[in-house]
Amino acid sequence: MRIAQVAPLIESVPPKLYGGTERVVAYLTEALIDMGHEVTLFASGDSNTRARLVSTCPRALRLDPAVRDPLPHTLLLIERVRQMADEFDILHFHVDLLHFPTFRGYKHRSVTTLHGRLDLPDLLPFAREFDDMPVVSISDAQRTPLPFMNWVATVPHGLPKDLLTFQPKPEGYLAFLGRISPEKGPERAIRIARRAGLPLKIAAKVDRADQAYYETVVRPMLRQPGIEFLGEIREAEKSEFLGNAVALLFPVDWPEPFGLVMIEAMACGTPVIAFRRGSVPEVLDDGVTGLIVDDEAQAVRAIEHAQRLDRRAIRAVFERRFTAERMAADYVSVYRRLLQHEYNGKLEEAA
Amino acid sequence: MRIAQVAPLIESVPPKLYGGTERVVAYLTEALIDMGHEVTLFASGDSNTRARLVSTCPRALRLDPAVRDPLPHTLLLIERVRQMADEFDILHFHVDLLHFPTFRGYKHRSVTTLHGRLDLPDLLPFAREFDDMPVVSISDAQRTPLPFMNWVATVPHGLPKDLLTFQPKPEGYLAFLGRISPEKGPERAIRIARRAGLPLKIAAKVDRADQAYYETVVRPMLRQPGIEFLGEIREAEKSEFLGNAVALLFPVDWPEPFGLVMIEAMACGTPVIAFRRGSVPEVLDDGVTGLIVDDEAQAVRAIEHAQRLDRRAIRAVFERRFTAERMAADYVSVYRRLLQHEYNGKLEEAA
Repeated sequence: MRIAQVAPLIESVPPKLYGGTERVVAYLTEALIDMGHEVTLFASGDSNTRARLVSTCPRALRLDPAVRDPLPHTLLLIERVRQMADEFDILHFHVDLLHFPTFRGYKHRSVTTLHGRLDLPDLLPFAREFDDMPVVSISDAQRTPLPFMNWVATVPHGLPKDLLTFQPKPEGYLAFLGRISPEKGPERAIRIARRAGLPLKIAAKVDRADQAYYETVVRPMLRQPGIEFLGEIREAEKSEFLGNAVALLFPVDWPEPFGLVMIEAMACGTPVIAFRRGSVPEVLDDGVTGLIVDDEAQAVRAIEHAQRLDRRAIRAVFERRFTAERMAADYVSVYRRLLQHEYNGKLEEAA
Repeated sequence: MRIAQVAPLIESVPPKLYGGTERVVAYLTEALIDMGHEVTLFASGDSNTRARLVSTCPRALRLDPAVRDPLPHTLLLIERVRQMADEFDILHFHVDLLHFPTFRGYKHRSVTTLHGRLDLPDLLPFAREFDDMPVVSISDAQRTPLPFMNWVATVPHGLPKDLLTFQPKPEGYLAFLGRISPEKGPERAIRIARRAGLPLKIAAKVDRADQAYYETVVRPMLRQPGIEFLGEIREAEKSEFLGNAVALLFPVDWPEPFGLVMIEAMACGTPVIAFRRGSVPEVLDDGVTGLIVDDEAQAVRAIEHAQRLDRRAIRAVFERRFTAERMAADYVSVYRRLLQHEYNGKLEEAA
């Protein structure tokens, strides 16, 4: 199949720094190429890919000090896709909803993965208008605020099988990996570790937007014994960081659309202790790959149980459910069903 | 002619508060209706117009506490215009560049007035791609950073003839009207008034973004004798505020794309003392409607000269050059030339 993948321009594909969506697009693109598809990647010029790369800006917008407004750059990217649209069988977008007005006429062979949270009231009237555009969710929970959209599949994220290394024997610490922001629950993680009497290693970046929260709330908590703050770590350091942990704490306090770090931990064989929010019950097999809890006391009690889970079984679930190969196969199935007009209901109705 | 006017959604048309673009769209819309045209206004639902109103949101986005992101609302508006496009002879946009990808196929009967500054590097690659879209500048100076665009006319703004009242005999103060922000030069205005030994009345709003500048720089200067800060004034208060001034100070320190307050002063018969930046030399007739200066010392010396200018002559220039009727006639001429394919060069080339 001739496939166009359209990535955000904020980070390169894959990203040099943080950037979940761009990482998933990179994994998907390479996996589709491995399957023999002809992939064109629309992304920033400093992207690194085996696909044909089409760029409208030389480098990732977040790293370009001259860029103040990403919007015209993204609109230009969308226009370039439109101009080249006839070269592809299928157009796969990862740029939120910005391309909907331009690509409504292409809806029979275009699909959009929505990567973010969808519970923002501003999206509602727009999504109602475009309820015929085929969209993919990254968890069923993510759809909840916009159930009327033309959901054609849920495709959970996946990682390249050998990106992270299985670790059969962990060391004796708990891990927290992510952004320092209220919705990711770093305070909860610290309290849980302290009550359990286990060391906690925190690998996290602090966005400019969360600087005040870090300084006033989190930093004072870091002085407690056993709490170690490593800052942001590189991709290459994740295997060791996650693999050596007895469990990953994922105490989220928001409707998490997916939560990549959960499957990263699983790839290392590390169980996850996660709060029951958003995608968590879909991503975790409770009692197998981790434990789902409703409050901090349950999380503290879950730590001992988590340490008794079979780490090889966790890795086996990762290999079955969360590889990039599985993700790419899911998307190819979506593409084929789209091209065979199997989403006729809504698609034809509004055509 | 059946004309669609597409306004920003940030403020209503006309705006209840600040909002230059929405005010101009309101004046243009009503003037086109006076000329006998059939106008449809795409704007927020709380707009007040004699045109047919088409809305995609119930109220101005700036006044809606539920709105965090205006973008999906504006994209929805653009989609609504696309759906109804065949009902109009001409589509006139005032929403920056956001509609370009959707309306490229309508470029023979669509035109866009660019209302903002165009010297932002982010615009450059996007504008190069869309150099076939017919655009109107509000001053020749505004075009400078993007000379390669398909400029079809410069149409200076205009006000309804009787919106503001001519005042033959001013009181003895200088006026500053606008936003408190570095580019509008309130500090300069205060220094100029102090050196000239004349009172200065400042009618200005302070945006959240400019709060720190106001507190640390401007507010301490307000304590000086003769400086009076009135805060934001209503439209109805402008005639008195501007008309009673011996001169308006317009000491801008940025490439001002137009500067509505200059023609508001002229409508009252009040001369303008303005710095030579952006549109100023196009809007002011130096020595007739005001005086153009290059530094604060010149501005101080200009005050006496300004007081000797003929206020009736200033009003006469306003009536000749800057009424909404003239503006609407200019736009109708643009529409006609577009529909007669008189901009064939670039339009046909890229068709």
